[in-house]
Amino acid sequence: MAETEWVAVDWGTSNVRAWGIAADGSHSFETASDKGMGKIARADYAGVLEGLIGAKVTAGADVVVCGMAGARQGWLEAPYLDTPASLERLSDGAVRPESSFVVSILPGVCQRATGHEDVMRGEETQLLGLLRLRPGFEGTAILPGTHSKWVEIRQGRIVRFSSAMTGEIYEVLSQHSVLRHSFTGETTGPATEDGVAEGLEAGLHHPELFTALVFRTRAAALLSSKGPDWCSGYLSGLLVGTEIGGHRDWLGAQPVPLIGSARFAHLYAGALKRIGVESFAIDAADATIAGLKEARAQ
Amino acid sequence: MAETEWVAVDWGTSNVRAWGIAADGSHSFETASDKGMGKIARADYAGVLEGLIGAKVTAGADVVVCGMAGARQGWLEAPYLDTPASLERLSDGAVRPESSFVVSILPGVCQRATGHEDVMRGEETQLLGLLRLRPGFEGTAILPGTHSKWVEIRQGRIVRFSSAMTGEIYEVLSQHSVLRHSFTGETTGPATEDGVAEGLEAGLHHPELFTALVFRTRAAALLSSKGPDWCSGYLSGLLVGTEIGGHRDWLGAQPVPLIGSARFAHLYAGALKRIGVESFAIDAADATIAGLKEARAQ
Repeated sequence: MAETEWVAVDWGTSNVRAWGIAADGSHSFETASDKGMGKIARADYAGVLEGLIGAKVTAGADVVVCGMAGARQGWLEAPYLDTPASLERLSDGAVRPESSFVVSILPGVCQRATGHEDVMRGEETQLLGLLRLRPGFEGTAILPGTHSKWVEIRQGRIVRFSSAMTGEIYEVLSQHSVLRHSFTGETTGPATEDGVAEGLEAGLHHPELFTALVFRTRAAALLSSKGPDWCSGYLSGLLVGTEIGGHRDWLGAQPVPLIGSARFAHLYAGALKRIGVESFAIDAADATIAGLKEARAQ
Repeated sequence: MAETEWVAVDWGTSNVRAWGIAADGSHSFETASDKGMGKIARADYAGVLEGLIGAKVTAGADVVVCGMAGARQGWLEAPYLDTPASLERLSDGAVRPESSFVVSILPGVCQRATGHEDVMRGEETQLLGLLRLRPGFEGTAILPGTHSKWVEIRQGRIVRFSSAMTGEIYEVLSQHSVLRHSFTGETTGPATEDGVAEGLEAGLHHPELFTALVFRTRAAALLSSKGPDWCSGYLSGLLVGTEIGGHRDWLGAQPVPLIGSARFAHLYAGALKRIGVESFAIDAADATIAGLKEARAQ
């Protein structure tokens, strides 16, 4: 196995992942734990990191961290960079918490314009990774997920961005609203894919009616014998369609990078294709690692 | 006190309300309980009604009921009337459950058109009440609430309608999503009314961006020191603005009836005024009672 030169860490709300990086850029090890920012106290971070990588690398090694470890309630606050934020200078905003390693926590990015306040932590590193993987990229990138991000990049800078609560709205409506009744019972009726297709069409063409079209998840179950498969497909399709339909003016003629899981990339690629927009997928972890490598090289 | 001739009942999901009606139309009594459809079994209805009004009226009296008692999971299913649904013939669809009284449960109304499936139970009776209070009314009525209804009425018929999950989305997002962190803590910062105004403007002009603009509830708390008052105002304003902005083509030049609580009527009237639409308020209970009277007279 190649010798570890430094360690790349993605410290999120729910989990933490670390990759040993060799001099040639290959991975010497990969490890993870569920000790995300949401589950540990400030005093726990140094110990959690030691437990994760202490047996694999020597004390004093470089560790570059992105994500929620830099939040106010994390290990040590790395204040947000303001838009327009230069990704090439991301590491200038890094902070150094106390540790047996030489730890740098990268900052997040915020947008302070009144009426457009927004924040990200972790995605900025994936976008830096996008620029490493696709040098000179300009245009809009989409990072689908719990809080999807739409980000416009020009000349190596995050010019503006918009977060849509797509994934989280799916969770709370399917678990806590009257719609939950449509997600239980016999799995009869049309398939998930049919629901996705109908939801996408509705959302793409009428994003302004999301709060009404979403009730159809319940009404169609009552009136048209739509089962849990169709209903879950419809709700996710409607949410993704609404997100894309609402941000349509962010899209140009060029292919859109989709940075996320394979499942999301597939869903979003299909949705974009319906409105004639091409896309290409970049795995979220690949983007994160590329971004951490680029930040260390800065 | 005037002698009770018959009893008007609104049997909802959470509560049940009953009004004794005298020959001259005045109320001989009013009573209520929390034994809504969601809390009792089919076999309980007759006993709950007896407990509510048994001491006040003689056995065999007429009782006209609207709402969820007629749902499939209620006392006895009163199948939906399909749109276009004649309100003048609402009582034709009533069903008669076993009881020591002569009970009629009015039907709800449904819309089966694919892509526009929708249901109501209770609101149809309030709309019949609207026609009693404003004979010959034509146009769109709004019934704000947990599931707001927009209803187009022509020649005494419900031609089409649309339910927006405005109230329920407020509940689930403020209680179960990441936004809940914006609703706790010190009540510093700008006032509720400022939040309402900003939310209304955002929703009225960009209903297509609801799933993104809603994240501002969190980002503005993090970046601009907006406290719980502003955040709850912003979220409710954004939801009401989005509902109205998305349904703008349902509104004509004439004043719009707002059938609901005084609080909702005030909020919606202010929102409509921002886009140059006049409205007038009708109390929800007044509309229900007028509708039950009209149904009995049919």
